Amino acid sequence: MTISMYSMTVPFYAGMLTNLAHVLTKAEAWATERKIDPTVLLNDRLAPDMLTMKRQVQIATDHAKSAAARLGGVENPSFPDTEETFAELHARIAKVRDFVLSVPQAGFDGAEDRNITIKVGPQEMTFPGGQYLQGYSFPNFYFHMTTAYAILRHNGVPLGKGDFFGRG
Amino acid sequence: MTISMYSMTVPFYAGMLTNLAHVLTKAEAWATERKIDPTVLLNDRLAPDMLTMKRQVQIATDHAKSAAARLGGVENPSFPDTEETFAELHARIAKVRDFVLSVPQAGFDGAEDRNITIKVGPQEMTFPGGQYLQGYSFPNFYFHMTTAYAILRHNGVPLGKGDFFGRG
Repeated sequence: MTISMYSMTVPFYAGMLTNLAHVLTKAEAWATERKIDPTVLLNDRLAPDMLTMKRQVQIATDHAKSAAARLGGVENPSFPDTEETFAELHARIAKVRDFVLSVPQAGFDGAEDRNITIKVGPQEMTFPGGQYLQGYSFPNFYFHMTTAYAILRHNGVPLGKGDFFGRG
Repeated sequence: MTISMYSMTVPFYAGMLTNLAHVLTKAEAWATERKIDPTVLLNDRLAPDMLTMKRQVQIATDHAKSAAARLGGVENPSFPDTEETFAELHARIAKVRDFVLSVPQAGFDGAEDRNITIKVGPQEMTFPGGQYLQGYSFPNFYFHMTTAYAILRHNGVPLGKGDFFGRG
């Protein structure tokens, strides 16, 4: 009746980051083919008060990185949000993926009950690791990854759900 | 190092369905206030070959319902996709939420290793319950819930991430 915190975090996020990179590869190839300035896609948003596509990618990767660090009990590295090109976003995804995969499995022992404290704006939130993963990390990750995908789809990039799920 | 399949499924989906209903309530109230025909929001999509907002809601609820049924070992009820109004979508969400909460906890014993077979188009996919939940059910649910939210945001509905997360 249980499932391992390690398997829910490390292989899962590593796989989804691969899918995210795949989505960006298709988007860039489409832009190149259509002679569309890639910064149009990188900086588009669905509403004036929503974040840009590149920010969605940065935040999604941050949630993957932070989950692996916090649940695996290692230092959470900070990656500045400086990416301005598809190549730079790819480098960030690869760096985060390498980091996620580097976190030792043993560190996840007891992670489901260990308290995790995070800052959300000015507030601190504390919850057991299991709840953090499912109730905070996953929804945030998917929220931003899906929004990045939705921005690209809205621009006409020929993506399908299979690309999102790694079957594209 | 583990987390319960029941808690990952039933209370989780019940909570997210409440959030989804809350997002729709705000969208309808905004449309009423601005004298916008609610069917505009219900039938909008982000690209011509993407599904409408109401379909995103129908599919999201289906993933919640199916996860509870399959992992809890009970019959998976079929709900026809006939909703055309906000009120009807609310009724569907409530029906699915009631169903999810009705699935007995005991049925989730061993669910993480029990094989689940689903049909995706013409193909059958079989995976252990834990993998089904994390690798299929969650991503699909979030994919459609986030897309419904993104369509509403794109139309100007004043929503924030807190609404999506039940803090709105």
